Amino acid sequence: MREQELVRWLSRRNPAIGDDTAELALHGRQVVTVDSQIEGIHFPAGLDEALIARRLARVNLSDIAASGAQPSHALCTLAAPRDFDHRRFLDTLVQEGKTYGFELVGGDSTTASTVATSLSLIGTLDRHTRFVGRGNGEPGDVVWVGGPLGMAGLGLYLQQHLGIELSRGRQVNVPRQLAKHAATVRRAVLTHRLPQPQLELGRWLGRRRRVAAIDVSDGLGKDLGRMCEAGGHGAVVDAASLPLPRSAKQLAEAIGLDSLELATGAGEDYVLLFALPRNVRPPASLGATAIGHLTETTRVLLDTGTELRDVSNAGYDHLE
Amino acid sequence: MREQELVRWLSRRNPAIGDDTAELALHGRQVVTVDSQIEGIHFPAGLDEALIARRLARVNLSDIAASGAQPSHALCTLAAPRDFDHRRFLDTLVQEGKTYGFELVGGDSTTASTVATSLSLIGTLDRHTRFVGRGNGEPGDVVWVGGPLGMAGLGLYLQQHLGIELSRGRQVNVPRQLAKHAATVRRAVLTHRLPQPQLELGRWLGRRRRVAAIDVSDGLGKDLGRMCEAGGHGAVVDAASLPLPRSAKQLAEAIGLDSLELATGAGEDYVLLFALPRNVRPPASLGATAIGHLTETTRVLLDTGTELRDVSNAGYDHLE
Repeated sequence: MREQELVRWLSRRNPAIGDDTAELALHGRQVVTVDSQIEGIHFPAGLDEALIARRLARVNLSDIAASGAQPSHALCTLAAPRDFDHRRFLDTLVQEGKTYGFELVGGDSTTASTVATSLSLIGTLDRHTRFVGRGNGEPGDVVWVGGPLGMAGLGLYLQQHLGIELSRGRQVNVPRQLAKHAATVRRAVLTHRLPQPQLELGRWLGRRRRVAAIDVSDGLGKDLGRMCEAGGHGAVVDAASLPLPRSAKQLAEAIGLDSLELATGAGEDYVLLFALPRNVRPPASLGATAIGHLTETTRVLLDTGTELRDVSNAGYDHLE
Repeated sequence: MREQELVRWLSRRNPAIGDDTAELALHGRQVVTVDSQIEGIHFPAGLDEALIARRLARVNLSDIAASGAQPSHALCTLAAPRDFDHRRFLDTLVQEGKTYGFELVGGDSTTASTVATSLSLIGTLDRHTRFVGRGNGEPGDVVWVGGPLGMAGLGLYLQQHLGIELSRGRQVNVPRQLAKHAATVRRAVLTHRLPQPQLELGRWLGRRRRVAAIDVSDGLGKDLGRMCEAGGHGAVVDAASLPLPRSAKQLAEAIGLDSLELATGAGEDYVLLFALPRNVRPPASLGATAIGHLTETTRVLLDTGTELRDVSNAGYDHLE
């Protein structure tokens, strides 16, 4: 499909598209973020275009959530081979916008031998909401995490090493030896492919007087390390408190993985990691778990019960 | 260099970088745009990182100019091999921001086998300025162009077919047979590699009561066709009025190119193409040339003096 036809087709579905530049109707204060999804790094060649689009939206929505904002507008770049299903990709992205509250207002499409796509997202802070940076923590604050850690890492391993794939109908092919873990296999793969941005939790965080937050994209150790570096403090995490469901631990054990390493070193869970003063607790309905506290030193330590292990470099680095 | 070190290094030069999300201090009304530069499509492998960064900034600034806005904030994505000089690229981008008035507020960096980079630019319309769309033209309007057409196409040809390259010192290697065209060779290559966004002209356009504008990225024929499609009108361009300097015509002739085809079919000049009511003329200091007028029909025609030639498909299509 020629670029001009593609733009025409998209502008019928999504009237904000059509010019090289879009004028925005903005309210409140704005935040911006951008993240890419690259074939061979974030997803394998041949992956369903709808899954690429959804993940692209969600990893960016997760950053918006960590800032306390709500999404409003998006710009997309897409470099892809000619046989890539551009319409399926864009339709899904527009659909994600409807689900999560942003409008696709611009983009750029080029041919390339492998798929590389990025989304810039603009978010809004209303007058009751503060921008939540990662550097506002203080020693003594309690460290919380918004959901399970290690689930996405487990899902990635299952796909890369056991040939498990998510079908268009969102089913997975479970090998016979993992039959009794079937539900957990599916949940892990879904967590990796389709992260759930914690916008509601982010909105709650944005209304606190003081809070530091970041989303777990590169692993607890590394992302907590970033929070500590920005705030000039350290942290101790209690290994026993890390939220990885028992069923996931059993699956990890069945395939020879260390669930503590998954929870601290694997990334892509896209749950929020945040620090709050001791006397502030998120409502139970938001599902967050306290996992440790911030300290005066600048070290990022995991307390396993038998040792204090430095985990600030446990995560995944995109330039390594 | 690891991603975290890169972010640390950049945040010392450019304090707005550091978190996944940036809060913006915005005034007036906003516009947004995004464009990519891809190795093998927009530039050859091994090109100086500074040239990639400058062109990335300028093709986007050109879109902002066509909207009547002034640039304010940018987000960059960069996928590149490990040996890419990230610092040179980012330093140059920050420098371009200082030159043209935008601040780099975020980005995303990943490894990849080839270089793909994009910039999302936010621009501001002050209260005296209208958003300039491409669809506001009316039959009878005069069509103007903000600078030479075909110069960048000539520069691209010289690089692709005659092995001419722009050095880090911005000199070109001129083959002996083109020695007497040396200055024009250099100008053509510079025009292609380092387009000049017409922000001042854009600002003037934004203050008109009615104007349509687009920048010439894919060629006069194609971009004028887009303007006509958006406005529901046609256009006739007078071939004799197309601004390509005599020296460029002579160089084109010397290497066997048709200068009329260059001026109508080659793209990447990044000059503004705009339509104004008959009684409105841009100040001579802005250097624009009247090249035709809008018509009732929906055809995009070139009047060569001997024939009316349809040029709506003469340009370059990124998905062809």
